[in-house]
Formats: sequence, C-alpha cells, structure tokens
Amino acid sequence: MALKNAFYAQSGGVTAVINASAAGVIEAARRNKDKIGKVYAGRNGIIGALTEDLIDTDGDSAEAIAALRHTPSGGFGSCRYKLKGIEQNRREYERLIEVFKAHDIGYFFYNGGGDSADTCLKISQISDTLGYPIQAVHVPKTVDNDLPITDCCPGFGSVAKYIAVSTREASFDVASMCKTSTKVFILEVMGRHAGWIAAAGGLASSKDCEIPIVILFPEVSFDKAKFLAKVDDCVKKFGYCSVVVSEGVKGEDDKFLADQGLRDAFGHAQLGGVAPVVAGIIKDGLGLKYHWGVADYLQRAARHIASKTDVEQAYAMGQAAVEYALAGHNAVMPTIDRESNSPYRWKVGMAQLADVANVEKMMPAEYISEDGFGITEACREYLAPLIEGEDYPPYKDGLPDYVRLKNVAVNKKLSGFEV
Amino acid sequence: MALKNAFYAQSGGVTAVINASAAGVIEAARRNKDKIGKVYAGRNGIIGALTEDLIDTDGDSAEAIAALRHTPSGGFGSCRYKLKGIEQNRREYERLIEVFKAHDIGYFFYNGGGDSADTCLKISQISDTLGYPIQAVHVPKTVDNDLPITDCCPGFGSVAKYIAVSTREASFDVASMCKTSTKVFILEVMGRHAGWIAAAGGLASSKDCEIPIVILFPEVSFDKAKFLAKVDDCVKKFGYCSVVVSEGVKGEDDKFLADQGLRDAFGHAQLGGVAPVVAGIIKDGLGLKYHWGVADYLQRAARHIASKTDVEQAYAMGQAAVEYALAGHNAVMPTIDRESNSPYRWKVGMAQLADVANVEKMMPAEYISEDGFGITEACREYLAPLIEGEDYPPYKDGLPDYVRLKNVAVNKKLSGFEV
Repeated sequence: MALKNAFYAQSGGVTAVINASAAGVIEAARRNKDKIGKVYAGRNGIIGALTEDLIDTDGDSAEAIAALRHTPSGGFGSCRYKLKGIEQNRREYERLIEVFKAHDIGYFFYNGGGDSADTCLKISQISDTLGYPIQAVHVPKTVDNDLPITDCCPGFGSVAKYIAVSTREASFDVASMCKTSTKVFILEVMGRHAGWIAAAGGLASSKDCEIPIVILFPEVSFDKAKFLAKVDDCVKKFGYCSVVVSEGVKGEDDKFLADQGLRDAFGHAQLGGVAPVVAGIIKDGLGLKYHWGVADYLQRAARHIASKTDVEQAYAMGQAAVEYALAGHNAVMPTIDRESNSPYRWKVGMAQLADVANVEKMMPAEYISEDGFGITEACREYLAPLIEGEDYPPYKDGLPDYVRLKNVAVNKKLSGFEV
Repeated sequence: MALKNAFYAQSGGVTAVINASAAGVIEAARRNKDKIGKVYAGRNGIIGALTEDLIDTDGDSAEAIAALRHTPSGGFGSCRYKLKGIEQNRREYERLIEVFKAHDIGYFFYNGGGDSADTCLKISQISDTLGYPIQAVHVPKTVDNDLPITDCCPGFGSVAKYIAVSTREASFDVASMCKTSTKVFILEVMGRHAGWIAAAGGLASSKDCEIPIVILFPEVSFDKAKFLAKVDDCVKKFGYCSVVVSEGVKGEDDKFLADQGLRDAFGHAQLGGVAPVVAGIIKDGLGLKYHWGVADYLQRAARHIASKTDVEQAYAMGQAAVEYALAGHNAVMPTIDRESNSPYRWKVGMAQLADVANVEKMMPAEYISEDGFGITEACREYLAPLIEGEDYPPYKDGLPDYVRLKNVAVNKKLSGFEV
C-alpha cells in the first residue's frame, strides 16, 4: 500500500519561530520516510488546500528546510481565514476532501492559534462526518500565549524577549536623558485580549537592574488619575519612567483607549495607536517630556533576538505532531508541559483538540500586582524561563541570512475553486 | 609637577555605542597614568561641569569600564544644553574655568554631535580668550550621521543595522500575510534633517533577498500621487511592500507630514508620528490593509544588535581623542577616514574643530534613486560596511547584562551655580 502524504499549513499572524515548527514537521517526516509519504504545504494556509495550491516541500533541500529554524515569518505564506462549521459550509469541507483524495493526503498538520485549533478540530471530524479517513494534529503557535492546557505557546517567548530587551534598552536611554529632556518613554505592544506581552515588559527590571516600569494591561480598566499619580511617583523617585502599554487597554467606559475620536483637518477619523494617546495624557496631566514607540510587527518578526527556549519548543511541537500522527492519534495537539521553574524543565505533552478549540487562556489575576501596574513574583517565575537563551541566526553582509524557499508547486489535478 | 586631570562628558541624544567611546577615553587614560591624572566625568553632560557635579571614574573597576563597551545609553548621563558664545554668556565660561581650576583639569573631552562640537570649540578657545590653559578634543557621536569630514559618525552604523534588520524581518512578516491580510508595512525612523537612517532601510533588500521597499526621505518633497502609484506598483508586482519613512518628511508646502492638524474630541491638537499619517494616506488612496510601527528610542538604544564596525569605531574615537590630547593637540576631533569600500578599510584621522562646528553633512543627491523612493548603488556601497559584523553583549537570565556604574561623586570645592 502506498504511503499516505501529509498536508501542513501555517495560519493566522506569523511569528519569529513558526518556521521552526515547520522545520520540525518536515524533518520529522523526512526521518520517517518508511511511514509517511510527501509533505505538501498549503500556499497561504488553508487557502492553499481549498484552491489546490500545494507546495511540494521535497523541492527544497535539507539545508533550506533546516534554515527555516532560524527564519521568521511564514515560509509557505499564512492566511486569516476561518472555516465555518460543516453545517454552515459543507461545500468547503467537501472540497478539502476532494483535494486530500486527489493528493492522497492522510495527515493534516495545522500550525496556528485558537481559531486554527477549531479549524483543525473540524477537519479531524471529517473521518466520521464525511467518511474520509484523515488524522488531524494541531501545532500550537501564537504570540498571544492564550491557548489552554499548554504551559506556553511557541512564538510568545520570543516576543516576550524582544519586549523585555527593548524596554530595558529604551529605559537606559531615557535614564540618560531625563535630567534635561525626555522623562517618560511609552512603548505600545501587541496583545488585544490578554496582557501576556505587556507583562513581559516587566522583566526588563530585575533585582540587579531596577527600572521603574508602569504596565497598562488590557485586564485592568484604565484609571487616568491613578495612572498619572503612578508615573509622577516614578519620575519623582527615579527621574524617569517607562510605560509599556498593551494595544488592548480599555477605559472605564469599556472602549479602547486608542479610539479617541481623532479627526484630521478635514474631519476624517484617524486611527492612531494607543501609545500617542497615553503620551498625550502624560503631557496634559503632568507636562513631562515624552517619547513613544510602537513595536508592531517588529516584535513578532524579531528572529534576530529570539528566545532559544522558544525556538526549541517550536521545533519540538512540529516534531511531536508528526510522531503523534504516526502513533495513530487524531484531534490532538502537542503541548509544552512545565515540570519545574528553576531549573526550568519541560516536556512534550498532549491535549485533546476538543479541549483546546475556542478556549482562551487569560492571564491569572495573581500575575498582576495589587496596584494594577506591574507583575508579581509569580508572574516573573512563569515568564523568566521563556526568554532564556539566545539563538542567533547566521549573518551575511551584516544582515540575518534568512531563507526563502523555492516553494515548488504541485501539479493541479482538479478544477478551480473560489474562496 | 602634578599631572593634569581630564574631564569627559556625553552630550545630546545617546546611542548604542557612546559608552564604547567613553570606555575608549577612560581606558586610554588609564594606560597613560604617567601623563594624565584622573578622568572626571560630568554627571549629565556639561551641566555636571557647570554645577561641579563631577564623577570620579576611578570609583568604577576596570571590569565596569570595560562593560561600558557593550552597554547602550549614556553611562554618566547626557544633556541637551547648548552653551552660548562667550560674548553672550561670559558667566558660564568663567564658571567652567573656576571648576576646571578647582579640579586641576587640563583636558576636555566632549562626546557629541554638531552642537556639541561647537561647545567643544568654544571651550578650546578659553586658553586664548580667558587665559586658562586647556586642550579640548571632540569625540564624534550622532545617529544622524551629519558631522562633516569624518566618513561616518559613531552611533549611526548601529541604528542603520537595527533599521535594516527590522525592515527585513517585518517585510518577511508582511510577505507571509499579504494574501488575505496586511499588504503594506510602514516603519517610521529617526533623522529629522537628513535621510541617512531612512536610507539604511534600503539595505534590507539585497541581490539575494529582494524586498520591495519604498523610502520617504526628508530630502524629497512628499508627492502623494507619485507615492501612491509607487506603492500600488509594488503591491501589484510583489503582493506587498514596506515603507520606511523618515520622521522629517515634508510635504510640498514645506510642512512636516506628521503635522496634520489632528484634533482630539475636545479640539486639542494631537501630535502623532508620521507613520500613522502615511498609513492613512494609503488607506484613503489605495484601500490596502496596513500595519505601522515607530522605532523611536528602540533604534538608537538597540545595543543587542549593534554593528561591530560601529562599536570598534566608537571605541577608537575615544582612544584617539586621548592620544591626540597627549600629543598636544587642541580644538580637534578624531575622524573615521575610509580607505576602501571592499574590502572595507578605515583609519583614524583628524579634523580641526573649526571646520566641524556648525557644518551639517547632508546626504548626497546621488545616493537617492531617480524616482526619489530608493537608494542608489553608490549609497549601498557607502552604507554596507557600516552595518558589518555583530558584537553581542553578554546575557544574564535572558536579558543583556548592561552595566550601571557606581558614578562616585567628587567632593565639591566651590559654591553652587544655577544653570
């Protein structure tokens, strides 16, 4: 009997290490050539499956696949596209089966966050609901760190490291300038629903390197008077302070702080970030000189300062997904199980997708300090191991030597399909 | 005769490598203990001299001073404070002489950009104008890269590397997402008067890694229609594009593009960055999904990704300043003289401060491509060696182990002084 092929796709916002998971999947499959056929990647995620736009990963050398481990972004292209339920959109599921059949695909690996876990779960049910035998395994990925069961999510550790390092560096800068110039630096970070990334800013300050950092979490309603008092305190005590603000911070009216009804000269609404809004509040309330930055994509693409722990975990998740599939599992997701904080020890575990899909892990309340502006010791113990270690990419001419795959297309066998 | 002491101070905006210059000065002085006494640093720049707030650098160990080489920001504090001419403010110059006399200072090392070079020149003239013998040597520093005579300025190479690396990383990110989501990423960078830093964004694209990058230089009047056509072209050809915009870009009306007359709900003026303005233009003009980032202090504090070339040059400038002073020079500045592009070779040269002060080196017109949105091959040849090499700081617990000096105060001998 011919070996079944595998399908792999990247989904949602990409990260510094999602390609390390891809390398884990492909290299594990290549080590098991007696059990698994080709690995086809979806060009631009699940859209590649729907449109039969498949990539033959054998078109890329072992060196190129290994280089994925040190290359940020999604090497095969990602997408923001959520499959509806089978009842709502039977047409898409039938098309997927058509494509899977045409290319003899028996394994489905989906690399993404919570929405993608839901898609993966639905695919895993095709065996029963539509009678097509397939094993679906989800590979966790999200900078938001909000998947349940797994202790952390690949992608988060590297963003956390970037934010911690950047906050420390910018704080050293403003500390040098504060006598005559800037006294407050504001950094806007990602994380619309949960404050995990903002919390990482707190790591910039440590016992042997104290830095006044005020964190604005999406979990805590913004209280202007309290915030201004806190910044004022810090500046009086240290001469300066750094503010790390989550893009998702909301006011007491439950509206995003970033949504300030800004209008340009013609009255058009302008959507700015939350950092300039916070800067304006500091200027109006305290009259202090400020600077602000918005890390945006830089934070999740910063492979140059990725966490070694994160890279290793991302790779391990990809590898474990293949091993689980070959062991006969369906509708599961490999997880990172923490065994101890110090020394940090973890192992690969397994979660049932039904327990993962559509469940968001929020930041525990005990991770936020009593005043609402900092992280607790418990939070520090959780976060610290995740940013441990450096894993520098190779450089060429002063720039990281990131790989671009050939991404050789698989010949189409079916007629077109509109997504 | 007792040896004369030296005064060293940091001035203006700090950089990832200004402390490497400080290490160069202090270590060179320590190697010449038979010719030079103590090195006193001004706490917060020249203000430290005026207020007799001096730091005895002997209070910090050889290890701590060596660690300055890998620590960003200004270890002794910097300031934005420009001395007026002797005619306008004789009081300040007389105070400086009083402080210099009290602490037996015969050497003045000032680490800064164009304004600081002017201050240093004025100090160098005290010998003649006010009869106090002192040798003043300027140590070049500025991320703006706008000092004349020297081929480049310490601080610039590391910002250039940060912007080139970040632009490459974010471009990989948006390339993965562009099928269904973000198509344009906009990064705002420093450089109010000259486009050197924006130009560095162009390095993200290379022969073996082509990336569509549209640069908005302060040297080129913003032409909305032409810009939108360029972005549209890139997106049609590549599916995505990255825009690197200098904070100093002006419209055809010679007003900063960032100054869009934004008003909040109460009609108060809001100063945003230029990146969201460009994002709004793309949204209105092309309807494309965008993301934007503002690097701000992160770019000039990013010692974690400093250019090795830049670190070496910054250190060499500090060291040469001491050597020039000991050789009897006054009113000079060590320079970086380029001998060849490929292989890159440079040596330490010397400029007369009178030729440096108040002269801005603009970016040559031949460094900007004909359409005004890119860099030429000549520009690439100039920039490429400046970002060469990595010089990673040591890490502890996942974070760069930057030094904080003890900064032991020198006992005051004089009465107070108001600045």
